[in-house]
Amino acid sequence: MTPRALLFDVDGTLVDSVYQHVAAWCEVLDQTGIVFPAWRIHRRIGLGGERFVEALLADTGRTATPPEVKRLLRRHDRAFARRAHQVKALPGARELLQFLSNAGAPWALVTSGRPQDARPALQALGIRRRGATVVTGDQVADAKPAPDLLVAGAERLGVPIEATIVVGDSVWDFIAARQAGAFGVGLLSGGYGRDELLRAGARRVYQDAADLLRRLGELGIGQTESARSLKAS
Amino acid sequence: MTPRALLFDVDGTLVDSVYQHVAAWCEVLDQTGIVFPAWRIHRRIGLGGERFVEALLADTGRTATPPEVKRLLRRHDRAFARRAHQVKALPGARELLQFLSNAGAPWALVTSGRPQDARPALQALGIRRRGATVVTGDQVADAKPAPDLLVAGAERLGVPIEATIVVGDSVWDFIAARQAGAFGVGLLSGGYGRDELLRAGARRVYQDAADLLRRLGELGIGQTESARSLKAS
Repeated sequence: MTPRALLFDVDGTLVDSVYQHVAAWCEVLDQTGIVFPAWRIHRRIGLGGERFVEALLADTGRTATPPEVKRLLRRHDRAFARRAHQVKALPGARELLQFLSNAGAPWALVTSGRPQDARPALQALGIRRRGATVVTGDQVADAKPAPDLLVAGAERLGVPIEATIVVGDSVWDFIAARQAGAFGVGLLSGGYGRDELLRAGARRVYQDAADLLRRLGELGIGQTESARSLKAS
Repeated sequence: MTPRALLFDVDGTLVDSVYQHVAAWCEVLDQTGIVFPAWRIHRRIGLGGERFVEALLADTGRTATPPEVKRLLRRHDRAFARRAHQVKALPGARELLQFLSNAGAPWALVTSGRPQDARPALQALGIRRRGATVVTGDQVADAKPAPDLLVAGAERLGVPIEATIVVGDSVWDFIAARQAGAFGVGLLSGGYGRDELLRAGARRVYQDAADLLRRLGELGIGQTESARSLKAS
């Protein structure tokens, strides 16, 4: 039997960076003179960059030209870069990835961001890019909530998408997982509520990566004690 | 008939300050060397200061002496003060309070913070302290989720607590409202999920103050068009 493969979102799922993204966007949008309350920004984090800006502007009835959107994204990148040193691995994230590697369960990171956005996260997780499967937004036609990133992740791991578990913290992860036909598992560590994740399509919700690591058996990952002792005998 | 009275929480309900409080606490707690993920801090905002610190420490199995708690609170105050200029009124908050004043519906602000903490919020709302009923944490024996602040607010307005509507953004507001026997109304503008607020005891949940203002009639506040025309005739 092939062990189930896991596709991990990064921000809010493995690294504690959602609130830094919110702060960076607050700073940038404040300079535009339009009022974007922080909670509305928070609820859009995880959408691919351009979709993020479009979704926020839609709230205010405004639109932006593609060059304006690009300008806002560049300003966010600079504002986030000033906060990147604060980004830490979430509790249990490093241990979870290590456990999966040891257990021979394939895993990949799938993130809407660009390679340079993923760098502080990989650093916080102690991952070298060459040593892991990492799919970034620039490698696919459409970012979350489109299923493209997840489909690409499964392809890179060489497993059918239906055999994957998508682990994420935002509703966008589960809208994408549903479209792709993957099994969604939510973590509360990005600051969404449990019911928001369940309603969007998450089938199970755990507190954080540490909680997921303790309960991997519920998802059929890792060997049971009895399987291990059978093998050893 | 006495018009129903409203008791408003401040942070996340009327002013956009929750994410600044999270950032301030992240900064302070980071210096203690204990890992406190931002989402766990976020979910405790709205608890009275000392209870907040105790609840966070409980997660890590640590305790703090009263002087240590006080020291952390002072450091948070300084970290928040550096962000206070970012605090703005949430959409519809000023208009909502103005409408209630014009309609003769009594209202008060009830906040776990101390008077100096409430100052930037009052400023953002365009309220002079002498012109409004404001109950702060230092004026009662116990902060939220104890009902003391709400009971004091109702007393100051001269209305029975059962006739009040408590408007808040966090589960702590509704735990307090339930204990006090008040009717809880939730707003999503502090970044909690709708179901979290409903489960904690909110009877209705609106997006933000602007949304509540449009739907005040659902709560029996303000006159209907027909009542107004009857009066005029």
